Amino acid sequence: MGHPVVAVAIVFVSAAIAMAASSQYSHHPLDPLTATEITAIRAAVLASPLVPARPLFFHYVGLDEPDKPDVLSYAYGAADAAATSSQMTLPRRAFVIARAGGQSHEFTVDIAADNASVLSHAVHRGPGFPMFTDEDQIAAMALPYTYPPFVESVRRRGLDVGEVGCGVLSRGWFGAEQPAYGGARVVKMKCVVVDYNATANIYARPVEGVVMVVDLDRMAIIGYRDRAVFTVPKAEGTDYRADKVGPPFTGPAAPPGVVVQPEGRGFHVHGHLVKWANWEFHVGFDMRAGTVISLASVNDTDAGGLKRRVLYRGFVSEIFVPYMDPEEEWYFHTFTDAGEYGLGALASQLQRGADCPANAVYMDGYYAGSDGKPVKAEDVICLFERYAGDVAWRHTNGIGLGGLFSEVRPDVTLVVRMVVTVGNYDYTLDWEFKTVGSIKIVVSLSGILEMKAINYTHVDQIREDTHGTLITENTIGVYHDHFVTYHLDLDIDGTRNSFIKNNIVPKRNTGVRATGGAPTPRRSYWTVLYEVAETEAEGQVNINSAPADLLFVNPSKKTKIGNEVGYRLIPTGATATSLLADDDYPERRASYTKKQVWVTPYNKSEKWASGLYAEQSTGDDNLAAWSKRNRSIKDEDIVLWYTVGLHHVPYQEDFPVMPTISGALEVRPSNFFERNPLIRTKPPENSPNCSCSIGGSA
Amino acid sequence: MGHPVVAVAIVFVSAAIAMAASSQYSHHPLDPLTATEITAIRAAVLASPLVPARPLFFHYVGLDEPDKPDVLSYAYGAADAAATSSQMTLPRRAFVIARAGGQSHEFTVDIAADNASVLSHAVHRGPGFPMFTDEDQIAAMALPYTYPPFVESVRRRGLDVGEVGCGVLSRGWFGAEQPAYGGARVVKMKCVVVDYNATANIYARPVEGVVMVVDLDRMAIIGYRDRAVFTVPKAEGTDYRADKVGPPFTGPAAPPGVVVQPEGRGFHVHGHLVKWANWEFHVGFDMRAGTVISLASVNDTDAGGLKRRVLYRGFVSEIFVPYMDPEEEWYFHTFTDAGEYGLGALASQLQRGADCPANAVYMDGYYAGSDGKPVKAEDVICLFERYAGDVAWRHTNGIGLGGLFSEVRPDVTLVVRMVVTVGNYDYTLDWEFKTVGSIKIVVSLSGILEMKAINYTHVDQIREDTHGTLITENTIGVYHDHFVTYHLDLDIDGTRNSFIKNNIVPKRNTGVRATGGAPTPRRSYWTVLYEVAETEAEGQVNINSAPADLLFVNPSKKTKIGNEVGYRLIPTGATATSLLADDDYPERRASYTKKQVWVTPYNKSEKWASGLYAEQSTGDDNLAAWSKRNRSIKDEDIVLWYTVGLHHVPYQEDFPVMPTISGALEVRPSNFFERNPLIRTKPPENSPNCSCSIGGSA
Repeated sequence: MGHPVVAVAIVFVSAAIAMAASSQYSHHPLDPLTATEITAIRAAVLASPLVPARPLFFHYVGLDEPDKPDVLSYAYGAADAAATSSQMTLPRRAFVIARAGGQSHEFTVDIAADNASVLSHAVHRGPGFPMFTDEDQIAAMALPYTYPPFVESVRRRGLDVGEVGCGVLSRGWFGAEQPAYGGARVVKMKCVVVDYNATANIYARPVEGVVMVVDLDRMAIIGYRDRAVFTVPKAEGTDYRADKVGPPFTGPAAPPGVVVQPEGRGFHVHGHLVKWANWEFHVGFDMRAGTVISLASVNDTDAGGLKRRVLYRGFVSEIFVPYMDPEEEWYFHTFTDAGEYGLGALASQLQRGADCPANAVYMDGYYAGSDGKPVKAEDVICLFERYAGDVAWRHTNGIGLGGLFSEVRPDVTLVVRMVVTVGNYDYTLDWEFKTVGSIKIVVSLSGILEMKAINYTHVDQIREDTHGTLITENTIGVYHDHFVTYHLDLDIDGTRNSFIKNNIVPKRNTGVRATGGAPTPRRSYWTVLYEVAETEAEGQVNINSAPADLLFVNPSKKTKIGNEVGYRLIPTGATATSLLADDDYPERRASYTKKQVWVTPYNKSEKWASGLYAEQSTGDDNLAAWSKRNRSIKDEDIVLWYTVGLHHVPYQEDFPVMPTISGALEVRPSNFFERNPLIRTKPPENSPNCSCSIGGSA
Repeated sequence: MGHPVVAVAIVFVSAAIAMAASSQYSHHPLDPLTATEITAIRAAVLASPLVPARPLFFHYVGLDEPDKPDVLSYAYGAADAAATSSQMTLPRRAFVIARAGGQSHEFTVDIAADNASVLSHAVHRGPGFPMFTDEDQIAAMALPYTYPPFVESVRRRGLDVGEVGCGVLSRGWFGAEQPAYGGARVVKMKCVVVDYNATANIYARPVEGVVMVVDLDRMAIIGYRDRAVFTVPKAEGTDYRADKVGPPFTGPAAPPGVVVQPEGRGFHVHGHLVKWANWEFHVGFDMRAGTVISLASVNDTDAGGLKRRVLYRGFVSEIFVPYMDPEEEWYFHTFTDAGEYGLGALASQLQRGADCPANAVYMDGYYAGSDGKPVKAEDVICLFERYAGDVAWRHTNGIGLGGLFSEVRPDVTLVVRMVVTVGNYDYTLDWEFKTVGSIKIVVSLSGILEMKAINYTHVDQIREDTHGTLITENTIGVYHDHFVTYHLDLDIDGTRNSFIKNNIVPKRNTGVRATGGAPTPRRSYWTVLYEVAETEAEGQVNINSAPADLLFVNPSKKTKIGNEVGYRLIPTGATATSLLADDDYPERRASYTKKQVWVTPYNKSEKWASGLYAEQSTGDDNLAAWSKRNRSIKDEDIVLWYTVGLHHVPYQEDFPVMPTISGALEVRPSNFFERNPLIRTKPPENSPNCSCSIGGSA
């Protein structure tokens, strides 16, 4: 977030190389687009007479997945949907946003056959723009070098223009208070000193005070400001590359360790379908969302292996990152990383044995470059079984009544990981599947702070609000937030669900049994007040405001003893919500970050929390806007939106690279199974020294 | 919590066997009592003429650690304390609570020499009693079998008295609303069906409606009530022992996995001192607190390996578990597990390869039985390096400005684990040390619910508040809370610290730089308001009420650029606080559970949040009572008290054994180091397939 450079490895691949699909594997309707398909889509769009304008740049190319009932029917048979065959052929379509002639064009492309064709076309008339392309950013980055005012600014700072590099930053949206530039696709650019011999840490050396305004369609600098000169922080002590900091490697050292699986891996990947323990799910890739988990179902081993639905589709919908400095060069730092830059497009190649352990397997992704040609994102998803030393369940029975025994079941989980590097920040985004039936989504933040150059070298010199922490000489780590918003289309045991607030409320003991009390000295207790959310307004929750268990339940399915089957939310840290004023522009665009939880009825078009055109969006097409309709969410096909949020006050330890900090949400079966699904799981008797089921007495 | 049976393996050991100390290792002043020492303490107490009354029962025997300045001087040299020699000999003393003649006697025993001697004696005159002994519980459990009203109650339920077993439950304290019994040491007993052929799960089959009152000193039943008969739930489906549920083991199966460390373990245990990576600390054992971590210091590798203090002493001070059923048989279920039952005394033998992974090492503990003789608690602490697949820090630099490279440092942590089984519940209590300088305390709950028998077999029959969830036929899982309160005597870089609230507060943009604003379209932002807590009242925080970073800082130590060195608190889930009414008796005893954070000045006698005599305590000697003095906590030796809290609404998955659920607190260096301490840590180049530091461009 924050984005002085293009952060992705661009590897163009030929369609021939990219066709390496498993020969046994027939396409799943939710499979991400292949390189071949992307090539065909490009050809279809370029061949279409509907948009003759050139040049034409591809901003988004993704799967336009078949309608949900058809996918459900394909995956689970006809019981839950209109169609009738599990071997049915579903339409294979792509959704494309391309820019040409100063307009954003939307195409639906049929790619079922070998020769793709455009099915429909529309021009986007509303506010906002699609994601930046690589080409946008690379071309813009070349502009300053030949822009005389900038060359002069650099010279004025004692630098050579060859030493600096600039990056494209979205300018946010500030209504009439920002110049409109005739509705052009305008960004800002800021610059840093780039000298990899001195340091890899380009973000540590900002050329503060200079902001350019660039029209990306005209690809020209249309505004320029050099407000003030600040000291460029020194390179010394900022590098983090192993070959620059050592040898000797004097940092703390833990010994190497590798997980060995004597019986091999426990999961099977067939195309994009994954089977592991009691889980089945589909792993997709999208250039905007990154990893997409679909059709996750859990086998109920106590019910003869019945496959039970949990999650139709889950992905990161948006990452909103507002900075907290109102100054001229910083006020617009209000990034929507997914909608502006694209999480899949910025997925980093995972480093084997470091980003993922040695027992991981890897998946590639493909997306379209600005010319429409396929780009291979290599090793951007990994899957591994996690042996963290945790315990799934345990109990030791005491000797007191004659039976001493311990039963322990270690926990092993399956992690699906992607690392998205949005310029300076690195998000490790995990989907962790647990045999107990939980899915835990984990956001881990690392990478590099956005730094602001300042003339102070010591805290004692500071007499103003610097809007951040002095983290090293001449350097402020600017205050900011991270709001990672997930789209989680939970389908608990079927499509129609309700959202339940089991409010945990204090009670006085009335002393009277008819009113829940009892004639005892106890004066108070708490109980659970069951509340069904009827409409969207009731589906919005700030989880810090009052204690409650929040559940998705299937009101039509009950356990044998009559409890509604459900999954509940377990937030695990990182529950911050936005503190921006409701009337502030960035807040209007991302007003959904005022509450962690929103529930909406399923609508195939409502995928992106900040709207389809998030770049310079105005808030008229976002999660909060949709929810204003206050639709019914009771016993409907509903979607959970959950935001993992952090207020980030930087500390010196965050420099030059930040130690990882994490937040998570677990969705956990709650009256979904008849009992703990792991009771009949085998103890680890083959593990070294295991004695998990010991008997006898002392 | 909740405690129908004695839950500990009692293994009496001879002093000769127990003397297996490392020959090179000279006693550390914080080492827990050895078997030899416990034997000598017993002899000294029994030989003392100060308390001639017999029988005399030992309720607590623990180390009376030397005064803090002396320990600091021993450990770190004279700089921080009055004494002068790091090889100084410190007094070796024990603190003993014994019951004789109907009184609680306190002894201080000198055990420096071979023949121990009583140094001081006092009689406890206030309210409350010491922890139960094993003997208390075993003797009480024998009473009902020959108590005619109970035999009749059992017969009335169609059971044989030989099929039932009863356990001692603390009766809480309810002022004048509960019979005083002349101030006697009174408990309640409740019973379950015990038939290990039918099921191991004795808690699943309560003999509901029957409560006995027992005087433990007279060891007699002094009250009896059989209020109503309820169906005893069936045994079928309640067992969890591997040999009863399989084969076949039809539960979800993940493959076995073992961490292999090709270069061996990275930590060294010398007696009770542990060295690992950049950490050094001492692991103790106490029959009340369980694991005690002392003298934790981190080496600042960027400062030439300077040893810097972090934690003087940390342990679980109390676990308060109030149940939420006001009914006659349940209202008093308001357990203080540490103070009533003892966490160390109830530590379970860890199951190798299951409770702890194969690469773990184990430690024993010793405590005193009620006769004063040493009891060996075997393998109750394990230490292992955790390879969870996490990343300590990472960054991928984009290709845009000519430098594509990724640097990744995997995270390896060191875990110190104990499992405490308090009757039905199993607490896995971890201290996780991280190379980044963090200590993470993790509470993981598993075990068995406290269940209440009820005549309902289906939710549809229920028309009342059952104060819990119908989790199987005839069985309610009763609502309850868990409040695990830690005593964390942080000493950040020295003894005198301050508690800082960095309040994260929203601001309007004034448009004027002099007031922190700027003339830009941005209307709002947040900033940090620094607040030093002056006195204890300001040291109490409900962390859910408003966003803030909470820190312990050393106001006398600053980083080179002038930030106060500190550690901050990062709560990670489980932030519930008590919902009981302030005037309710259990709340008065544990009123400190209304806020997660309390800060007090260090006082050697303030160890136990519910008071030294927690059993039937009245709240006059607890954390909240001490804090009413509102002492200064600014630039003092201060202690953090942090409560990990959960409201537990049971679900069917919690039956018959609960899947683990966790909460945590991390204390993390924050302007403690000059920069990320892991920058100079070697990348894992020797790991298979590692390519953590890749260069080049595409």
